[in-house]
Amino acid sequence: MDSIATLRAKVDEINAQLLDLLSERARIVVQIGQQHSLLGKPHYDPAREEEMLRNLAKANRGPFPEATVKKLFKEIFKASLDLEEDQDQKQLLVSRKVKAQDTVLRIGDVRIGAGEPPVLIAGPCSIESEEQMEQTAAFLGGRGVKILRGGAYKPRTSPYGFQGMGVDGLILGRRAADQNKMLFVTEVMDTRDVEIVAEYADILQVGARNMHNFSLLREVGRAHKPVLLKRGFSATIEEWIYAAEYVFSEGNSEVILCERGIRTYEKWTRNTLDLSAVALAKQETHLPVVVDVTHAAGRRDLLLPLARAALAVGADGIHVEVHPSPATALSDNEQQLDFAGFTRFQDALQPLLTTPVLAKS
Amino acid sequence: MDSIATLRAKVDEINAQLLDLLSERARIVVQIGQQHSLLGKPHYDPAREEEMLRNLAKANRGPFPEATVKKLFKEIFKASLDLEEDQDQKQLLVSRKVKAQDTVLRIGDVRIGAGEPPVLIAGPCSIESEEQMEQTAAFLGGRGVKILRGGAYKPRTSPYGFQGMGVDGLILGRRAADQNKMLFVTEVMDTRDVEIVAEYADILQVGARNMHNFSLLREVGRAHKPVLLKRGFSATIEEWIYAAEYVFSEGNSEVILCERGIRTYEKWTRNTLDLSAVALAKQETHLPVVVDVTHAAGRRDLLLPLARAALAVGADGIHVEVHPSPATALSDNEQQLDFAGFTRFQDALQPLLTTPVLAKS
Amino acid sequence: MDSIATLRAKVDEINAQLLDLLSERARIVVQIGQQHSLLGKPHYDPAREEEMLRNLAKANRGPFPEATVKKLFKEIFKASLDLEEDQDQKQLLVSRKVKAQDTVLRIGDVRIGAGEPPVLIAGPCSIESEEQMEQTAAFLGGRGVKILRGGAYKPRTSPYGFQGMGVDGLILGRRAADQNKMLFVTEVMDTRDVEIVAEYADILQVGARNMHNFSLLREVGRAHKPVLLKRGFSATIEEWIYAAEYVFSEGNSEVILCERGIRTYEKWTRNTLDLSAVALAKQETHLPVVVDVTHAAGRRDLLLPLARAALAVGADGIHVEVHPSPATALSDNEQQLDFAGFTRFQDALQPLLTTPVLAKS
Amino acid sequence: MDSIATLRAKVDEINAQLLDLLSERARIVVQIGQQHSLLGKPHYDPAREEEMLRNLAKANRGPFPEATVKKLFKEIFKASLDLEEDQDQKQLLVSRKVKAQDTVLRIGDVRIGAGEPPVLIAGPCSIESEEQMEQTAAFLGGRGVKILRGGAYKPRTSPYGFQGMGVDGLILGRRAADQNKMLFVTEVMDTRDVEIVAEYADILQVGARNMHNFSLLREVGRAHKPVLLKRGFSATIEEWIYAAEYVFSEGNSEVILCERGIRTYEKWTRNTLDLSAVALAKQETHLPVVVDVTHAAGRRDLLLPLARAALAVGADGIHVEVHPSPATALSDNEQQLDFAGFTRFQDALQPLLTTPVLAKS
Repeated sequence: MDSIATLRAKVDEINAQLLDLLSERARIVVQIGQQHSLLGKPHYDPAREEEMLRNLAKANRGPFPEATVKKLFKEIFKASLDLEEDQDQKQLLVSRKVKAQDTVLRIGDVRIGAGEPPVLIAGPCSIESEEQMEQTAAFLGGRGVKILRGGAYKPRTSPYGFQGMGVDGLILGRRAADQNKMLFVTEVMDTRDVEIVAEYADILQVGARNMHNFSLLREVGRAHKPVLLKRGFSATIEEWIYAAEYVFSEGNSEVILCERGIRTYEKWTRNTLDLSAVALAKQETHLPVVVDVTHAAGRRDLLLPLARAALAVGADGIHVEVHPSPATALSDNEQQLDFAGFTRFQDALQPLLTTPVLAKS
Repeated sequence: MDSIATLRAKVDEINAQLLDLLSERARIVVQIGQQHSLLGKPHYDPAREEEMLRNLAKANRGPFPEATVKKLFKEIFKASLDLEEDQDQKQLLVSRKVKAQDTVLRIGDVRIGAGEPPVLIAGPCSIESEEQMEQTAAFLGGRGVKILRGGAYKPRTSPYGFQGMGVDGLILGRRAADQNKMLFVTEVMDTRDVEIVAEYADILQVGARNMHNFSLLREVGRAHKPVLLKRGFSATIEEWIYAAEYVFSEGNSEVILCERGIRTYEKWTRNTLDLSAVALAKQETHLPVVVDVTHAAGRRDLLLPLARAALAVGADGIHVEVHPSPATALSDNEQQLDFAGFTRFQDALQPLLTTPVLAKS
Repeated sequence: MDSIATLRAKVDEINAQLLDLLSERARIVVQIGQQHSLLGKPHYDPAREEEMLRNLAKANRGPFPEATVKKLFKEIFKASLDLEEDQDQKQLLVSRKVKAQDTVLRIGDVRIGAGEPPVLIAGPCSIESEEQMEQTAAFLGGRGVKILRGGAYKPRTSPYGFQGMGVDGLILGRRAADQNKMLFVTEVMDTRDVEIVAEYADILQVGARNMHNFSLLREVGRAHKPVLLKRGFSATIEEWIYAAEYVFSEGNSEVILCERGIRTYEKWTRNTLDLSAVALAKQETHLPVVVDVTHAAGRRDLLLPLARAALAVGADGIHVEVHPSPATALSDNEQQLDFAGFTRFQDALQPLLTTPVLAKS
Repeated sequence: MDSIATLRAKVDEINAQLLDLLSERARIVVQIGQQHSLLGKPHYDPAREEEMLRNLAKANRGPFPEATVKKLFKEIFKASLDLEEDQDQKQLLVSRKVKAQDTVLRIGDVRIGAGEPPVLIAGPCSIESEEQMEQTAAFLGGRGVKILRGGAYKPRTSPYGFQGMGVDGLILGRRAADQNKMLFVTEVMDTRDVEIVAEYADILQVGARNMHNFSLLREVGRAHKPVLLKRGFSATIEEWIYAAEYVFSEGNSEVILCERGIRTYEKWTRNTLDLSAVALAKQETHLPVVVDVTHAAGRRDLLLPLARAALAVGADGIHVEVHPSPATALSDNEQQLDFAGFTRFQDALQPLLTTPVLAKS
């Protein structure tokens, strides 16, 4: 019997031969891919793969069982396909592989992204009245907040819940923002409303429930307004990034990602804030990422610690709901901050809000 | 010190007095509610509740802490509101409280619901070609399947994936169904497509990703076609039922609920089929409920046991993907059945498919 | 430029050469493995793998990036290791690869497993008193139930909750079972209690909270009693199967798997029953699998539909909690059946309880 | 018909009467509770509650339906019980209601808790050899790390995986720690090993898989060593806190809580780090809380951002795995840091490691 050293030397030689063959194979496959591209055919040809696997299974004399041979060659096929897809992924517009540098959005005179101090996006869950919006905007504007939020179209579990003021709400939101030199962000839920919402808002929000609504993603991709894209409440990070790519794919490259917690079994919080998702979104894409602490936890006592953690992880901003009188709000009254609460929140965060976000590029 | 028996007698007396007062209070609150209805005001008046709670907190001398007093009275307020809401819920159109008897849909000469044998809904994930649809429909029609499925608009994680054949696909699906005297069900993803899809399809499918797309729910609610409503992949049962209510609220009472598994941590299956949801949906609503075994598990070897379980729990039908050549399918090629596989599947299920679904009413 | 056909012919040739080399490599690696076995060394040698990867990375001239080369070779290494591990897995004692035929347990005159009618395991959550156990056992025994359950050691979230009657409970359970010619199953939570529990019980239950308690698994593996092994409430199917292997690895091959629902976000049920897990456990192992419908749903109205579904999917038995007076039970009083409820439950299931479980082998 | 104002005045009067009656009832119930305590009976008497509910149901003349009356009175019963339980909860030893001030553990000359700089706990996943431990401890000690970790008993999914060096590992860990003036923390998995582990270790770790192993919790509660208690991988925050109470209930009040991520559907991370749990654990208990970033994410690229976030949210320390040569480690080789990686990690965290943790009390 050969010694282990002798056997290992043989393995090393075979490794080298395998590498040569794999490389040659890859070069040929790339040529096939180029011809397919010329013919407008997809790279992936499952029937051809099936044929090759059939042939290999027939030729196999062991010791690998057929399943292993198929698995190994599927890996080899996949690696070859990846060679081409890698160029596709270099073409995934949101990817850092395409654009290494952090995107900094410039909306009016507000800047969002790496190198800038984090932004606060604040305002009531729903737009309810002129007085409510004016009070809130005056208060927040006076505190240096640059982006006013407020829902005119509200996604509601029940069709009989308050569905928002619609266009009247848009008008109130726009006016309150203008009077206080703020930007106005509001949710759009229907492809047919994108035009009217874009007329009044500076930033179009796509809510968690619509992150998989691909028609809406395409439609806001055609609008000439920045998009605040919330993560779906059980969307994977990958799906969230692809949702942003939908917007990009229609020509709109102004997307802000917004993490807002995911659904888990835990009952003490409304959702479970996933800060790994923030870190990974910043690592894999060049987009600004903000964190909605209000929906993440659903409890006021967690807003401050979670905002601190979000900024520490590199978030480009914090989204928080503020209402003049949360107890009487038409929606989400358990979790909105009142003015005194917001003041304490902002004061406590202040040191972190003045430090520019770390650029990752 | 009084004996326990004496103290308990006192408690009994107080219980009786509390009941009298609570009942009287409820009667007055109902009167207030009626006046509010006349004035077109909502029943729920958070400002008034806040005032009452403030007064009670002020009056409280213990031994209950203020928080407990508030909690107890909130329960009392809620019970009063429920008296009115109960009538609202009696007005939740999908509820068994409104309609005790199971709804049986009649679409063409197909009947879906309690008392009828369970239906099979089958066909490819995506409509890919005329040949594919004709082969599939001829095969399935020949096997007695009455409802043909096939996607013309495909929701895809990536904007660059195959998005379906669109209207061309609708035409192919309609034609294949007609030639084999089958119904045709296909997904609609955009409010603006509802009209064209309704022109070609017998049943409009709302997919899992759009279960929270309230605009789409309302739009299919205005169409004059039955709706197959899939549960969102992390929707609660309650949210799913409310999604059906959205469709009803616009005047369309032909809704079929479809459970298709939920997202969990488990990795051996694509989703986790939740048959409790089927039992509860049948218990709380009067609607037919079918189970999509293909997406529930994402593996062919589970289709048959899960279909058996679904029928045992009372499902009104089974939704399963069938493709002439799954290995070369443009989507979901790991989980579609080929014709031989479907034959085995249907044969094994046959005894359960001929027994009428148990009526719950 | 070569035609696609020419290029494909070249690829076919390279595929064949790759297969030859991979096979030769595998044969050499198996020889190395045999020498390692002689030397008592593990098959997996990460340092050697690292060295080979370094060499390959150095030799690589493209077109594959270094990461791909490493990935492909790791797959090749893994396939070789799998050749040896496959024999390991053939040695995974619970696997159908080792024993194709279903295991049928014979405990006293009760048989559990394929080909036998499904068993009912019933009794109170906790053993509370002599009267309670005698009433329950007499009732259940009179209804033909063969296995009595009852907890003497209770796992409680709070250290101050009722922890069970301990040995006194074991005595009561044993006596009640004996008087009614039933088997007695009860939970053991501490390695040090295995001996005493095994003295009184016919079947040792390992609860969901202890499925990952490997010391306990080993200890019941050394006992000469069958083990009822519940799935942990967020255990994967794979982990559950490995937990059974722990018991087998110590020489005890009498294991009954018990699915009891997993933790998800859904709030209308206590857990989400995962019947795919039952199907997969029966497919991957040769063990009997039962379903605990009580903990799966946590609501009485779901016990019957879920039991029906469990039996339809192939479960070898149903585990259900029954108490003479659930409203006054010391634990889980929301979900236990009273005697009338159990009678209705059993009567409704009767047709399914008399049909032998389908053998999978 | 009375005006709304008149009706509301009546409601106000009834509210006041209800409050009086509820308060009087509570006072009587407290007296009953005191008598029960004297008699050694539990406060909660379900049979008595059932009787009262039956009487109330009989007396009820509407307008509330019977279910509502029962629900309201159950709330009233519960509030009364809470009056007593509140004292129980004041007696939940880990609660801030019992001890408002943060606990600061003093172990050797290391201090862990509010007001102190956060600690680093570092070392390999498994203890593998003398050389490995000595290298690691010398390196970490030289970098100022005060607590060395290393597993001598390893919980493994498979019974055939490397189970740790056992006592030999304890000896190596102890020696390496001593030589570098560090504390030594290591996991204990079996009640019967607590004594021997306590002999060698300064801190006993209870791992995620054993958080619900109540026997083990009690046993480490009887040891005279601090306990590092990891959250179970699908434990609720409440269950985790109760697990700590188990340790306290046996007389050991030196518990460090450790969040390490929970199981979710997300696939890009091994677990989902739940920083809300850290905030809530610090809010509800007086215990130090540390974060295991290694298991939370399972990827090296997330260790730094997650550690930053953990410290920002108020964690008292960071737990991270470090190995001289992760690629050749016997376990978890994908996620351990090598020495250069740890150096970068520690340097980047330095500013946060020198700031004392914010006291919450």
